[in-house]
Formats: sequence, C-alpha cells, structure tokens
Amino acid sequence: MNISIVYFVHMKYMQRNFNINPLDGISEKQIYIHLGLYSGYVKHVNLIREEIANLAKNKEANAYTISELRRRFSFEFNGMRMHEYYFEQFENNPTKQNENSTLAKLASVKYGSYDAFISHIREVASSRGIGWTIVYIDDITNTLHTVFVSDHEIGQLVGLRVVLALDLWEHAFMMDYIPAEKTKYIDAFFKNINWHTIEKRITSND
Amino acid sequence: MNISIVYFVHMKYMQRNFNINPLDGISEKQIYIHLGLYSGYVKHVNLIREEIANLAKNKEANAYTISELRRRFSFEFNGMRMHEYYFEQFENNPTKQNENSTLAKLASVKYGSYDAFISHIREVASSRGIGWTIVYIDDITNTLHTVFVSDHEIGQLVGLRVVLALDLWEHAFMMDYIPAEKTKYIDAFFKNINWHTIEKRITSND
Amino acid sequence: MNISIVYFVHMKYMQRNFNINPLDGISEKQIYIHLGLYSGYVKHVNLIREEIANLAKNKEANAYTISELRRRFSFEFNGMRMHEYYFEQFENNPTKQNENSTLAKLASVKYGSYDAFISHIREVASSRGIGWTIVYIDDITNTLHTVFVSDHEIGQLVGLRVVLALDLWEHAFMMDYIPAEKTKYIDAFFKNINWHTIEKRITSND
Amino acid sequence: MNISIVYFVHMKYMQRNFNINPLDGISEKQIYIHLGLYSGYVKHVNLIREEIANLAKNKEANAYTISELRRRFSFEFNGMRMHEYYFEQFENNPTKQNENSTLAKLASVKYGSYDAFISHIREVASSRGIGWTIVYIDDITNTLHTVFVSDHEIGQLVGLRVVLALDLWEHAFMMDYIPAEKTKYIDAFFKNINWHTIEKRITSND
Repeated sequence: MNISIVYFVHMKYMQRNFNINPLDGISEKQIYIHLGLYSGYVKHVNLIREEIANLAKNKEANAYTISELRRRFSFEFNGMRMHEYYFEQFENNPTKQNENSTLAKLASVKYGSYDAFISHIREVASSRGIGWTIVYIDDITNTLHTVFVSDHEIGQLVGLRVVLALDLWEHAFMMDYIPAEKTKYIDAFFKNINWHTIEKRITSND
Repeated sequence: MNISIVYFVHMKYMQRNFNINPLDGISEKQIYIHLGLYSGYVKHVNLIREEIANLAKNKEANAYTISELRRRFSFEFNGMRMHEYYFEQFENNPTKQNENSTLAKLASVKYGSYDAFISHIREVASSRGIGWTIVYIDDITNTLHTVFVSDHEIGQLVGLRVVLALDLWEHAFMMDYIPAEKTKYIDAFFKNINWHTIEKRITSND
Repeated sequence: MNISIVYFVHMKYMQRNFNINPLDGISEKQIYIHLGLYSGYVKHVNLIREEIANLAKNKEANAYTISELRRRFSFEFNGMRMHEYYFEQFENNPTKQNENSTLAKLASVKYGSYDAFISHIREVASSRGIGWTIVYIDDITNTLHTVFVSDHEIGQLVGLRVVLALDLWEHAFMMDYIPAEKTKYIDAFFKNINWHTIEKRITSND
Repeated sequence: MNISIVYFVHMKYMQRNFNINPLDGISEKQIYIHLGLYSGYVKHVNLIREEIANLAKNKEANAYTISELRRRFSFEFNGMRMHEYYFEQFENNPTKQNENSTLAKLASVKYGSYDAFISHIREVASSRGIGWTIVYIDDITNTLHTVFVSDHEIGQLVGLRVVLALDLWEHAFMMDYIPAEKTKYIDAFFKNINWHTIEKRITSND
C-alpha cells in the first residue's frame, strides 16, 4: 500500500457550512433540523468508507458484506451531495429570474417559457412518494431534464450535471407544513432561490 | 405553444451507430443482439416522450399516469445512454493502458495503482444481481468513484460524469458465457477497451 | 366481456374506519393527518385500476403506459394495506404482552425472548431511510422475520403473512417528534399496541 | 443466550431438490444452469445470516453494516423462495387446466375467463426490465393479483400468498432463446405447468 492510498483512506468528506439568511415561508427551525439531517449524510458517507476499509483487511472473507455496504454508498453520497445543492440555492438571498440567462433560453427551448418551466418543475414535484425533483443539464444534447428521484438514489439520470435540486422528503417541510400543504412549501422554495447560483451551475462547464 | 416547443416535442433521440471490429472473447452474435437491445432503449425513450405528449393534451385528468411514465424515464434514458458509453469503448480497437494518463494518476491516488484500480472494478463487478459497474469522475473532489448500479437507474451517483461503463446484465454475455463464467466475460471486456476513449471522457471537461 | 368482469372493474377498494382512542405519545392531530394519507393510498389504488381500465380500451396503443401504471400498483396497494395493519394495531386500547402466546413462543425460538424480540424490532427500525419495519410469519418454516421495507414496496418478503407493521415514514411522527427523536416515537408505538390483534394475525391461519 | 437461539443461529436453509422431467421448449441445460443459480440464493441467505451473527458479536460498532446486510436479505430470500415456487411448477409433468378449479373461478371473476387470465399474465410478463411475473391470492378480498416484480424484491405485494411464479430474468431463458424471443420462452413455460400444484397453493389455506 503506497502513501497516496493511505492518504485517501484517511481522507474525510467535510460538512459544508451554508450562510442562509431568514427565508420567506421556511422557518429557521426547519432549516436547522434539516441541516442536522444533512450532517448525518456526511457522517455516513465517511462511515461507509471506514467500515469498508476495516472489512477490507480480510477482503476474501468479507467480500459479500463489503459489496452490500458499497451498494448503499449512493444513498448516503447522493443524500450528502443533493443537500449541498439544495442549501446553497438559499445562500446570498433570493434574486429575480433573469430572462436573458442561459437557463431562460434552455427552459424556453424545452418547455416554451420560463414560467412553463417552473410549472413543469411543480408538476414533477407533485409525483407521489418521497424524494427529490432534480433539473439536470444534458451536455450531449444541450437540453434540460426534470426528473423525480425516489429516496436519494432511485431514478438519477446517468452522467448529467445538476441545475436545481428541490427536496421533497417530508423532513424538508413538516416543521412548517403538513403533507397536504406540500404545494405551500414548494411556493416558499421558489420564493427563496438565488437564480445566479442556478445559472452558474449551467455555465460552469463552458 | 410556441415554435420551439413544437420542435422539441417532435425531436427524437437517434440511435447511434458503433463501428466495432471483431472482439476477443465477445462474439459478433453477442454484440449484434446487444445492439438490438440498445435500440429498444432509444425507441422507448422516444415512446415515453410521445405518450406523455399525448396524455398532456388532457393534463389534469391524466396527471397520475403522466407522473408514473415520467418516473420510468430514467430506466429507458439511462439504458440508452449507458449502452452508448459501453459500445463506444469498443470502437477503434483496443489500446494499451497509458501509465501517464490522467486516469492513471487519478486511479493511483484513489486505488494505489492502475492494476489495483482494475482489480477494484472487478471486485465491484462481482456484486450480486444484474446491473452495471460504473466508474465516475467527481469534479468537485477530483476523485474517481466505482459503483454498482442495479438495473439502469438504482444507485447512480448524482451529478458525476461517467468514465467507464461495464454492462453486467445477463444479456451482455449469455450468448458466450453462462452466468457462472461472468468473470470470463469481464476478462474479455478489459481486453477490448480503447483506453483513449476512456481518457477523453475525463479530460473533456478541462 | 361477461358480467363478473364488469362487476370487478367497477369494484372499488373502500377506506376502512379505525376506532382509535387517544394514544400515549402519539397525538390526535398526528393520527388524524396520518389517516388522511392512508385515505390517499386507497384513492390511488382505485385510480390506477380506473386509469388502466380506460387505457385498456385501446390496449395495443397503450401497452407501455398500462405496464408502467401496473408497476406502480404495489406502491399504492402496499401503502393502503400496511396502513390498515398499522392503524388496527391501535384499536381497542393497548394490552399487555402475553408470555404464553404463540407470538411469545415464536419470538423466543428466533430471538431468545420476548424482550429480545422487541429490541430486535427496534434495531431494524433504526435502519436509515424511510419505510417500514415489518414482522412476518413464514408458514413454511414457522419462523418470524423482521425486515426493513423501503418506501412501501422495496424489500417485502414474498408470500409471507404480516404480523406487525411499524410505519417509519417521517409523516408517521413529525407532528410530534423531529427526526432525531424517532426512538421516542417508537417507544410510543410499543406503548399503544393491542397484542391480541397481533396474536390473532398469527393464529388466523390455523 | 438460550439454547433455542443457539439452535436458530446455526439453522441453515437447505436447498430443495426438484424432480423435473424433460420439458417442452426449455432445455435440460437451461434448467441445470438455472438450478445452479437457485443454489446461489440459498447459499447467500445462509451467508447473510452468518455474517450478521458474526458482526453482532460487536453490535454497537457494527450497527450500520448489520443494517445494510439486513436490507439485502429480501433479495436473497425472495430469490430463493421464488425459484422454489418456479421449479416445483414443473414437477410431476404438465397437466391440463381444470375449468372447475378454484383458480378457474377466481380467474373468471377477475379476468373474465381462464384464457383471459393467461393472456393477462402474458401481458404483465411483457413489462420491460428483468424480474418476475407473480400471481398472488389476496385472502382479504379473495381476489387474484398479477404483478411484475423487478429483480426479486421490488414490487412484491405485502402479505399475499403466491399462486404462480414466472421467472423473467434473462438467465431463465437465454440458453434457449435470445431476449427478442422471450414470448417463446413464455409459451414453453405455460406448456410445462402442473396446474394441480398451482391449485393446491390456493386451497392450502382452507
């Protein structure tokens, strides 16, 4: 085992801090509790890696167990990463949508207009079950895709970059709204988005 | 509805052609049948889009049905896209691995060496069940991840780019090998890879 | 089409009423909101059946859409049925566990004792993610199995009868507890169980 | 730890033997290879139990790993159990369907006729992806349900007993047919069913 692998095994994913001002329609308590859950994903990404490293000391005997821990990695990793996409959307205060943005142009090509795009996200977000609504950019076709992902790991589109992440687990809103009021939470989500952050995700690849 | 959306609704995903010379350990019949299945994914990506467009003429009444078709999009889309990653790896004949490549460096940081990286992929590929072994590059941490994806859509890592795609559905090898010989198919897979193609996927983002 | 199929197509699943007295540690508001969600599963089981019946008027053209609606049936049906198992456990007031019950004997064979059985359920209930902890009886081996089911439909054991159903979706407890207090909800769950109901499920097959 | 739990921990699931005469349209080699895969499920059900027992010696430290092994139990257990339902359908030679059977009556109520029932199974079996078509009997409503289960564990109906199990993994037929010929395999499946076995599953509960 060389030095670099020793280093990597001991590398840990670090929890990010988010600088979020009070939001409109999403309470501080809700954000506080939600950040606590995010923290759990970071912890468990690291835990899986440690557990695998321990079990790998006896690789052959533990092959099956290692393999099943690996299968769960996507749940924790995506849980970590999607919450990061989610919370950073609330940093630096909400901004107005920009009709001249790349997002606006892509949205218009795919959905007809910016407003139709937002409506479309809301429609997908009304899918039954818990999970996320994710907007991706497909760099191969230069197209947006809006998809409902169950849990954190079922239904992700392979290889696409994330543009927008809307958490629809019940823990994302139940401090403020009952499940029957989910659309009110979605209203609040859109009121608090910093669209510059969204735009930068699209253009970061240029 | 403006012109652009009419265009997009009628846009179709096109089947790609792959220029694959005879392979070592994977028969022409196997590739031929496998390409036929790929073709089915392209067809069904288009079919879902058409069906949704039809149902959307009466959006309110069909909301639930539309939502469940959308939920299945990832299965067909990933089935299409991952087969494209898979077959293009066999184009332009196999090449030797390049120890000075970006891939080699990243593999060495994460897994200790190029050989340890290949061994690691083989280990993940021995996970039980059908699916894919996917190697991703995470541009945020500049790290490789090797993951087993069940079916096409369960366990994808969110937002990461694909470096290598190894199909482990039984249809990928059962013309040549029985399930108990899966490792022989994996041997054959690695014999036929064009590593320039893999390298280009990593560096395309620079 | 004969009379019986016409009847069946028009048959509807009916929402059950549950006669639940005030519980210890689970508020009336929580139960009220939870029953509302149960009602949604019943409604959607019926809706899937209606939608399929409509689409089946043109079976060939709609084959794919019908098939994807069918795939989702298990989510709604299990959602309906498991909530029925859940709520009826709270009917007729809590009772003491009976050390001479069939359940106690089976629990003792599998887990060592009644207490160890309850501890085991709690352990399984601490699995990450949302879903259910289900205790089944396997009539082939006369053995209990305690399993975590994700969502409503991922991980059910085939063909086994349900003995106990513990809902661990966030909507089951977030009116009363934050996610970090989930064990308090599980405490409350066990305080309110009518164990005669559980016992009858086991012996109903005799 | 008392004697009974020691016993149970050491209890092993045993592979069943199936007495299957040569079938029409499913080759001996296909059955032989398929039985080998069944054997793998039995082995892994036992392996999960052993691994958990080992890890449980240090329950607190290994809690996460144990929990993820448990999550996978349904895949292996259902893989074992459904293959047992599958192979025993081929024992004792095929028989004619009996129009006076309980199955025929239930099929007629739900699907209109025996033939419509078989057609319905075939329709569900044409669902995309790999998995099983399972016919269940719901003892609560005295109704049949025909469902596509992905892999072995996604989409099982909770608490229902199994009437018929049709394996649609590619390994079930690819020794004899290519994927595009799946309907020929399904033809062969129905030619070889012993319907007495199916009937006994329904009436065993009386």
